[in-house]
Amino acid sequence: KHTCSLSSYQFLSSPIVSHSIDSKCRCKAEWRPNNSPKLLDLLDDTVPGIGTYEDFNTIDWVREKSKDRDRHREITNKSKQSTVALLFSISDAFSGWLLMLLIGLMSGALAGGIDIAAHWMTDLKEGVCLNGFWFNHEHCCWASNETTFQERDKCPQWKSWILLFPVCVLQGPGLYVVNYFMYMCWALLFAFLAVILVRAFAPYACGSGIPEIKTILSGFIIRGYLGKWTLIIKTITLVLAVSSGLSLGKEGPLVHVACCCANVLCHFFTKYRRNEAKRREVLSAASAVGVSVAFGAPIGGVLFSLEEVSYYFPLKTLWRSFFAALVAAFTLRSINPFGNSRLVLFYVEFHTPWHLLELIPFVLLGIFGGLWGAFFIRANIAWCRLRKNTCLGHYPVLEVVVVTLLTAFLAFPIEYTRMSSSELISELFNDCGLLDSSKLCCYTSNSGSASGSVNATAANGLGARLVGPDLYTAMWQLALALLLKMIFTVVTFGMKVPSGLFIPSMAVGAIAGRLLGVCMEQLAIRHHEGDIFRGWCSPGADCITPGLYAMVGAAACLGGVTRMTVSLVVIMFELTGGLEYIVPLMAAAMTSKWVADALGRESIYEAHIRLNGYPFLEAKEEFRHKTLATDVMQPRRGDPLLSVLTESRMTVEEVERLIADTTYSGFPVVISQQSPRLVGFVLRRDLVISLENARRNQEGVVSMSPILFTECDPPMSPSAPPAVKLRSILDLSPFTVTVHTPMEIVVDIFRKLGLRQCLVIQNGRLLGIITKKDILKHMAQMANRDPDSILFN
Amino acid sequence: KHTCSLSSYQFLSSPIVSHSIDSKCRCKAEWRPNNSPKLLDLLDDTVPGIGTYEDFNTIDWVREKSKDRDRHREITNKSKQSTVALLFSISDAFSGWLLMLLIGLMSGALAGGIDIAAHWMTDLKEGVCLNGFWFNHEHCCWASNETTFQERDKCPQWKSWILLFPVCVLQGPGLYVVNYFMYMCWALLFAFLAVILVRAFAPYACGSGIPEIKTILSGFIIRGYLGKWTLIIKTITLVLAVSSGLSLGKEGPLVHVACCCANVLCHFFTKYRRNEAKRREVLSAASAVGVSVAFGAPIGGVLFSLEEVSYYFPLKTLWRSFFAALVAAFTLRSINPFGNSRLVLFYVEFHTPWHLLELIPFVLLGIFGGLWGAFFIRANIAWCRLRKNTCLGHYPVLEVVVVTLLTAFLAFPIEYTRMSSSELISELFNDCGLLDSSKLCCYTSNSGSASGSVNATAANGLGARLVGPDLYTAMWQLALALLLKMIFTVVTFGMKVPSGLFIPSMAVGAIAGRLLGVCMEQLAIRHHEGDIFRGWCSPGADCITPGLYAMVGAAACLGGVTRMTVSLVVIMFELTGGLEYIVPLMAAAMTSKWVADALGRESIYEAHIRLNGYPFLEAKEEFRHKTLATDVMQPRRGDPLLSVLTESRMTVEEVERLIADTTYSGFPVVISQQSPRLVGFVLRRDLVISLENARRNQEGVVSMSPILFTECDPPMSPSAPPAVKLRSILDLSPFTVTVHTPMEIVVDIFRKLGLRQCLVIQNGRLLGIITKKDILKHMAQMANRDPDSILFN
Repeated sequence: KHTCSLSSYQFLSSPIVSHSIDSKCRCKAEWRPNNSPKLLDLLDDTVPGIGTYEDFNTIDWVREKSKDRDRHREITNKSKQSTVALLFSISDAFSGWLLMLLIGLMSGALAGGIDIAAHWMTDLKEGVCLNGFWFNHEHCCWASNETTFQERDKCPQWKSWILLFPVCVLQGPGLYVVNYFMYMCWALLFAFLAVILVRAFAPYACGSGIPEIKTILSGFIIRGYLGKWTLIIKTITLVLAVSSGLSLGKEGPLVHVACCCANVLCHFFTKYRRNEAKRREVLSAASAVGVSVAFGAPIGGVLFSLEEVSYYFPLKTLWRSFFAALVAAFTLRSINPFGNSRLVLFYVEFHTPWHLLELIPFVLLGIFGGLWGAFFIRANIAWCRLRKNTCLGHYPVLEVVVVTLLTAFLAFPIEYTRMSSSELISELFNDCGLLDSSKLCCYTSNSGSASGSVNATAANGLGARLVGPDLYTAMWQLALALLLKMIFTVVTFGMKVPSGLFIPSMAVGAIAGRLLGVCMEQLAIRHHEGDIFRGWCSPGADCITPGLYAMVGAAACLGGVTRMTVSLVVIMFELTGGLEYIVPLMAAAMTSKWVADALGRESIYEAHIRLNGYPFLEAKEEFRHKTLATDVMQPRRGDPLLSVLTESRMTVEEVERLIADTTYSGFPVVISQQSPRLVGFVLRRDLVISLENARRNQEGVVSMSPILFTECDPPMSPSAPPAVKLRSILDLSPFTVTVHTPMEIVVDIFRKLGLRQCLVIQNGRLLGIITKKDILKHMAQMANRDPDSILFN
Repeated sequence: KHTCSLSSYQFLSSPIVSHSIDSKCRCKAEWRPNNSPKLLDLLDDTVPGIGTYEDFNTIDWVREKSKDRDRHREITNKSKQSTVALLFSISDAFSGWLLMLLIGLMSGALAGGIDIAAHWMTDLKEGVCLNGFWFNHEHCCWASNETTFQERDKCPQWKSWILLFPVCVLQGPGLYVVNYFMYMCWALLFAFLAVILVRAFAPYACGSGIPEIKTILSGFIIRGYLGKWTLIIKTITLVLAVSSGLSLGKEGPLVHVACCCANVLCHFFTKYRRNEAKRREVLSAASAVGVSVAFGAPIGGVLFSLEEVSYYFPLKTLWRSFFAALVAAFTLRSINPFGNSRLVLFYVEFHTPWHLLELIPFVLLGIFGGLWGAFFIRANIAWCRLRKNTCLGHYPVLEVVVVTLLTAFLAFPIEYTRMSSSELISELFNDCGLLDSSKLCCYTSNSGSASGSVNATAANGLGARLVGPDLYTAMWQLALALLLKMIFTVVTFGMKVPSGLFIPSMAVGAIAGRLLGVCMEQLAIRHHEGDIFRGWCSPGADCITPGLYAMVGAAACLGGVTRMTVSLVVIMFELTGGLEYIVPLMAAAMTSKWVADALGRESIYEAHIRLNGYPFLEAKEEFRHKTLATDVMQPRRGDPLLSVLTESRMTVEEVERLIADTTYSGFPVVISQQSPRLVGFVLRRDLVISLENARRNQEGVVSMSPILFTECDPPMSPSAPPAVKLRSILDLSPFTVTVHTPMEIVVDIFRKLGLRQCLVIQNGRLLGIITKKDILKHMAQMANRDPDSILFN
């Protein structure tokens, strides 16, 4: 044994020797048979807890993926031995698909339930159905025989609340006031319930959840954020919040709900329960499912997950996400919550093609969208910061109540703010058809046909569509609604209720777009002899579709806020189903992104991640500074030396003291303090658990017992206490960079490999360490921000 | 100077010292001001050639990206100084978009031209238009007034060749024989021209090009593969090859053509001309463009590029690819080569929804597709290997001629092989409409209405569709066509003409699908009272769409051959435009992939990459073996020691001898042979160029001049020859792994960071090197293949 260790040491200090690794040290046979580094032995962890993470910690992707590959290898090897193991191996291979199927089914069902419930409760604010209180307004009148096609939403079965009490027979203004009051009461009740439930049972259920999901997907651990309580409470409170009439949407939270489903379902599959990296693949797919059910756009959902949310998105996940998104979309469609057997939320069909010159107003809408995005992000972040730093933050319930009251108070008088945002968008997107009774379609025809509803296929000769008096009113109301929506969306996003901003943003854009569209239309009709319109608008023809403008505006505003690009266009494309309108959508989305990026690089999600100080390493933006690894590594100039462990010369007591004195989450192991050449890296958590385990279970371990990370035991006197051998928890292949490595490359390595820390070497000597937090702090510093904000709080 | 160097050396051999890097060595001021490693100085390369690559070499992605970031930084810094520089910086930022626009326009125009030319020349084999020889059959008859709607493709202006010569008035069989002969003559002429042109001007223009593009995108350099000659010749010969009636498609080669366009256009933009990594981003976008124009499916094209072709696909490229793909699709549509203002190649609209039970035949089609894929890959690779290893490979022209003759000879008698593959697919996909005159729609109605063409909307009560005698003939012909297509596709793919296999694969699948579809249809009609069909097929109703089966079969076969998944489904989805049929398509594509994967892991492209020995590191499949870096690194056990340079003790002569004696493409630089601690890495090409440059331009450099890689000069006698300082070409941050690093992690690092080599360290000492080729050889070895096949040949 003595010889062995001597030759081993001799080797370590010998000049360049190739292959000495397996030729010199005889006791290498100890570990050589399994031919793998000890890192992989964590699989059969006899000591429980080794290889897991604490809350609010970052995972090590490389380690997790190694663990999974090892598990897979073991299963493959065993499968050759027995039929049972073979069956197990097959079931293991298909468990991923089964999980996706379950996630799709569950998310689709939940989304359908949320849609139906929200629809019903929104209508409940106005009245109740006499045929059965569980019918919403639309279903109530469908069931009725007395409804004419013209007035689909008026039927005797649907009673507004006040009419239920025959005592108070109110008329005109009185009736209006009581309805107003009832509307506010219901809104208040819903919002209050929502915020109370969130506060009481699941504080993580508030907000949209996308910033946190991005952080979790990048490898952070927030226990309970995707748990079953969050799922239940978020589902319930989402319905309440949407029904309360606040300026928020259910699309973002649906992503959170789908991720909760995925996380809960992961617990039934060992493969995914035990491995943080594998679970994140599933969560990436789940966020695709969320968007798929929110908009009925499976391809858009997958691209959203790829572009906006995911951090690690291998091709296998792409394929599985797509499968899950499709299953979810089909589940939702068979539930048929909108009652029209359409998969999509806003189905539109336009009849008139667009003209190349219309790109100018579309680009204008893009600019508006970009400005709105930049304004919204600044205003919302300022408001959230105010909430965080002043006493406002101590009264979340009061805040919700006040905002709800104000919203309801101001929203009720205007038709377009009273209706739910999705209905509003639906109406704005709509091309005025033959039988459309909406005020937005109240054109007067100048060819003398009946006013009110005019044939939209004006090309048939029914005359041009001039604005009628009702449309004038509608336009003013829309302008007012635009203003209100903008203000309330800023204030609402970030409150302690589930709140998404897809729908409010789209509503803002759709209103702006529709307004511009109607203006353009009137311009074209009145100046169809002008130079611009001559070649394109024949008199009496209907050459501009205001609904298309609304759609382009919605895309522009959503793009400005979220900075989505391809996924946005694809979602919009899936809404309309025609390649025709991709170019207008893309022109607007591109302009919007450029304008918004010029005013501030961050999307709303990234701004919230930064506001909350999550340790998120943005994969999109390149690190462009000229710093080197030596400028970032710890310890900094003047700090005490790097805390290291040595391979063989430390005692249990010394190590325990080091652990107690420092808070680092890992320690490099070197040959000796005098010769700081790197041997490996050991994680604090593993070290603590192993030492406790040794103290408890290994006989004769005392404070003076030496700790050995070496392959073979050094010579020792027989009276010495037994050594604690910890090579099994040592990572023998830590990542290293040299001091001269540019930070841009270091950042790239961290992003692409998902590292947690990296050691800094110069000419073979260990000089320092760079962790993910060091990088984030450095990036904050380079951007002139407070580096200490990078902490979870 | 002496002091400085002393302290520098002292530092290098001192124990752990943090920050010594900028505190100890005074002469650090020499390089500190620009605060960057010398690697980045390559930008202002005074020595031309440094930082470029030789042909058939692998690029270093990290270096290329560093170069680009540096360039960007420089432009940004300058832009703050003057308005001109600011404008330049803006134009630089938008040059990427401009390039995408140009690629889209050029590829769209070329694709349109190819479509029109191929269509015309295919018809030329049969006859000519009297109104003008440049009309194809369809256009010729459109222009004619004497065409009835029923017989759109018969008009007096279109003459088959023989009728042009009034002397020989042939009838019946004689006419047929002469037409047969003319058909074969034209086919032979086209194929002969194609192969001669390819042989004479651009040998790289043959084949589909996708395997090579995959290799190039992964970082390999093949000069001329994407050059202007390849572009011109490939465009021309593609038209010839398609028109010759060989069993090949133009879709794969269109990807190559689009990439050539991109590469040629890159030469006009310094940013992309100079940087291999940036150029590869553009090429990724170009392959999306290729698929976009081939199928009229921009989203599918982007996903194809992402899933199948690209190696490095950042989000920015996603967005740009999408833009370019859209521009190309719109350019193509405005050229309108199909004359129907449809963007897509095979526009279909089905009227009957599918039933859940139909998933069983769809899965059967998937199994067929998988079997076909596996068979095709094996047979084609065996055939190509035969061509490579026997004298067959010496007569490529003869091979093409013989195959063309055989194809034409066997194809002419059968209607479905005589027509071009795209027309065939179109006809097979088609739902039998009211006015369809195709033989495939010759049903006899059992309710007594006129036979021939029967109303497809049988739900109206026009009765069920039984197979008529014409349809029986058609079925037999189709079965024969299936067999012929299968054999000829195997033989054709890989010949020295441009040849894609998308269309032939789809044709095989479509035929099989249509056959199965018709069988199912008849089964349903005859057994509509049976247990299976009762709940679903009411008597007289038309509940099965054979066209849908053809589409599903096409997707399955294409999936089996290429192993595409999401992109395949999305392309098919864009062809139909309905979410309805995604589930059948996905079921078939999934089954097909699983079946094919069970029989062989490689797609046809990967198989061809391996056949040709390209150094391609597959990103999809995980490396699952338990080897360590030490098992793979060079030098192997028993080999001579690693060739290294030392920091300061080598002379010009020694280095030149080392260069002459070895063929390595780079050398590690260590402190000294006795203390092999890594300083950096220098590339052979850079070293050779620098030494030549020093010999030529630096005064007093002789063979005994020392070569210095150190920061500051060591003490030297005044009489010594002047030193050659080469620190500027030294990469101070080479990537390192430890000997214990599992190969799975090493492979992951190579893939994700795009490395070219990586040094292997143990406890601070350099032990070996791993290059991309070592990894590929090792992987081949682990898969029991010949490791020496990994070489470009």
